[in-house]
Amino acid sequence: MDPYMIQTSDSDSEVLDVHGNIGGRNPMPGKMKGRKARWSVRPSDMSNRTFNPIRAIVDSMRVKPNPNKTMISLSIGDPTVFGNLPTDLEVTQAMKNALDSGKYNGYAPSIGYLSSREEVASYYHCAKAPLEAKDVILTSGCSQAIELCLAVLANPGQNILVPRPGFSLYRTLAESMGIEVKHYNLLPEKSWETDLKQMESLIDEKTACLIINNPSNPCGSVFSKSHLQKILAVAARQCVPILADEIYGDMVFSDCKYEPLAALSTNVPILSCGGLAKRWLIPGWRLGWILIHDRRDIFGNETRDGLVKLSQRTLGPCTIVQGALKSILRRTPQEFYRNTLSFLKSNADLCYGALSAIPGLQPVCPSGAMYLMVGVEMEHFPEFENDVEFTERLIAEQSVHCLPGKCFEYPNFFRVVITVPEVMMLEACSRIQEFCEQHYHCAEGSQEECDK
Amino acid sequence: MDPYMIQTSDSDSEVLDVHGNIGGRNPMPGKMKGRKARWSVRPSDMSNRTFNPIRAIVDSMRVKPNPNKTMISLSIGDPTVFGNLPTDLEVTQAMKNALDSGKYNGYAPSIGYLSSREEVASYYHCAKAPLEAKDVILTSGCSQAIELCLAVLANPGQNILVPRPGFSLYRTLAESMGIEVKHYNLLPEKSWETDLKQMESLIDEKTACLIINNPSNPCGSVFSKSHLQKILAVAARQCVPILADEIYGDMVFSDCKYEPLAALSTNVPILSCGGLAKRWLIPGWRLGWILIHDRRDIFGNETRDGLVKLSQRTLGPCTIVQGALKSILRRTPQEFYRNTLSFLKSNADLCYGALSAIPGLQPVCPSGAMYLMVGVEMEHFPEFENDVEFTERLIAEQSVHCLPGKCFEYPNFFRVVITVPEVMMLEACSRIQEFCEQHYHCAEGSQEECDK
Ligand SMILES: Cc1ncc(COP(=O)(O)O)c(C=O)c1O
Ligand SMILES: Cc1ncc(COP(=O)(O)O)c(C=O)c1O
Repeated sequence: MDPYMIQTSDSDSEVLDVHGNIGGRNPMPGKMKGRKARWSVRPSDMSNRTFNPIRAIVDSMRVKPNPNKTMISLSIGDPTVFGNLPTDLEVTQAMKNALDSGKYNGYAPSIGYLSSREEVASYYHCAKAPLEAKDVILTSGCSQAIELCLAVLANPGQNILVPRPGFSLYRTLAESMGIEVKHYNLLPEKSWETDLKQMESLIDEKTACLIINNPSNPCGSVFSKSHLQKILAVAARQCVPILADEIYGDMVFSDCKYEPLAALSTNVPILSCGGLAKRWLIPGWRLGWILIHDRRDIFGNETRDGLVKLSQRTLGPCTIVQGALKSILRRTPQEFYRNTLSFLKSNADLCYGALSAIPGLQPVCPSGAMYLMVGVEMEHFPEFENDVEFTERLIAEQSVHCLPGKCFEYPNFFRVVITVPEVMMLEACSRIQEFCEQHYHCAEGSQEECDK
Repeated sequence: MDPYMIQTSDSDSEVLDVHGNIGGRNPMPGKMKGRKARWSVRPSDMSNRTFNPIRAIVDSMRVKPNPNKTMISLSIGDPTVFGNLPTDLEVTQAMKNALDSGKYNGYAPSIGYLSSREEVASYYHCAKAPLEAKDVILTSGCSQAIELCLAVLANPGQNILVPRPGFSLYRTLAESMGIEVKHYNLLPEKSWETDLKQMESLIDEKTACLIINNPSNPCGSVFSKSHLQKILAVAARQCVPILADEIYGDMVFSDCKYEPLAALSTNVPILSCGGLAKRWLIPGWRLGWILIHDRRDIFGNETRDGLVKLSQRTLGPCTIVQGALKSILRRTPQEFYRNTLSFLKSNADLCYGALSAIPGLQPVCPSGAMYLMVGVEMEHFPEFENDVEFTERLIAEQSVHCLPGKCFEYPNFFRVVITVPEVMMLEACSRIQEFCEQHYHCAEGSQEECDK
């Protein structure tokens, strides 16, 4: 019988399903040539290695909020969830215009329309870090920008340096690609500056790049010019390129200045990743970019070509957002940015002030982005084994959800998102206070502190 | 001197750039610990392996169109380029409504909003291939759907079976991930049906999946139900899951019926990839999906989880398009689909008819999608070494651009895109005729044919 002949008179296709039973016998052993006679489909090693620590930790927190208190979530880095921070009308209008033009429905080049890349280049161009369209690659969010940068810079078996505490995606992406992650420390007592010596000591011949996240998630810290220069000096000395995650670029409070890393160096090759997500308050739109700073031609054409080739795998971000980009960058009023920042600053002050007064907590004052890290003097909370349990109980008793420091590889801290409406921020702080007061114990040998 | 101390009085950051000269000497040899004292940044192996044959072939065709004839491009699989096939107004309106609602600016779950996945599930649900929201993953275009499927199903060193002629992205993605590609043949003399024996002979214990593209790019062919059943029988016998690229699903001409593969099998696990790109004429919007058909639980939760984890790397497609999805699927009028198809069918007939009459050409009649493959009897065109040179000269002399079969691993053919306006289609065909007549030579020993 010809195995390819089918009794088409029998329209029930199920007769063809010879392996309906898993592990059933193979009806045509002569045809098998080494293939197993049973189904066995396993997810790939890569998917097994793709691990999102936040998901894993949060999902394992099987805890119910207190039913008598409405939930206040200070856990998600999405400024849109409370509705108090809408994007600007110009941004929405730009999208409608792009739709109406009918010009942005087809495929764009996989790195983005030339005209859109020109706009990004001129928006971020400065004399000390010049940019042209050829230096810009548009991506599906800053996440994909980081993915492409790691994919072009590192081979499996190499390593990258990431900040601790730090954004977990770096590790998720690196490990899924078989790239080792080494953590350099940020120092809370120095407003989260880098421990430069420790960072430099991690670099070896397999180090493919150094990730610098400024302003920082989860710290809300902003590096000074001189600190950035010291980081650049390490990179230059060790000849390690930098992936600068600057998605919170320009999101700094008025008393502080944001310095794009690339403007401070003429020779360290830098891939700066950014996007519309945070500053324009539209993370769902998935428009990000890579800015290639390579004045000494160290990346060279090959690394640029590598990025272009990698972008061809998924053909770039949504063309309507690309089409709207020019207006978004040019027409969003300064007032919009100012309002967002003054709101964030006022919430930051409020939160920092309130939490500073709580015994057992040590918040670190933020200068930008949308977060604040709070140290927990665990010795004063002996009921809780660690930061995960602390934040779990905070949900159970006070219905306040913060991410434990463990999500950022930094125990004994928790992260607060400061994009919530002011009343919720206040309410959350007073609940955290109540919680801490209820659980605070004097540490042994520090009675005097408790008497204060 | 403390190497981290910086003379901040000297504000010129260039003093820090100790390796300004590539290969310059290392000023602090004691600090190097094995790191090379010079810059050497190379693109990764993965980016080097990411190879787009169409780009490579087209870019190497350094040929100028005939300045006396306007260019007619029949090369790009983008139905929007000529402006004659706009999307439906309901589709654009759905986007505006999603924008105005203000509800779709934040992050969606990385696999897409539940409500949007429900819509896709109910749109493609049928009794023989039931679907729920949990079986749907939204992606950044069908390209990313394919990428995620390959990434979850195959490890480096395994192989996949792809059609020849076939869409080049399969190979691009697979090879960039270190997955081997084996080609099974489609048979032009059988309306591009699969050579089932040859296909089955390629399967071995390292075969991770079988890619079936129906309707086909570049062939424009549509498999019959009984042919699909035969393919399923091979997969069932060999226990190989199927990646069904059904991006042209439902795009078949009236005399033909499209069968979604999953409706014909109860046991072969199938990942069906699709999206809005082609049928809704908005390829730039980058909305695709994976439909998981796994009634015998062969993929199981692990493969599903693997897809979810992989989706977390880039956080899903644009939320505005996701928000518009419900209206796009529900409100696009049937007339819109019908009009597109009757236009394509009429252009296909026109093109097939005209090219059939040209000596030396052997077009294969299409039944769907947006393409048509044309065989070139190379022995009658001895001036041209191969299909690449044939299409190159066609550009140079007639300003008509078609992709050579080589782009689809199929020499001695070229592909015609049939989405161009009718007048251009006609003009292109008559130029191809002129070109062939000018270059046609009687093959030796076939004088009688030339006398016809
Ligand atoms: C530091 C950092 N980088 C990158 C991203 C990802 O940005 P996108 O949403 O544009 O992918 C985030 C999102 O929270 C972030 O906090
Ligand atoms: C067969 C096939 N699959 C997938 C795709 C990619 O579709 P998308 O634009 O949604 O990524 C194409 C695009 O031409 C195609 O022809």
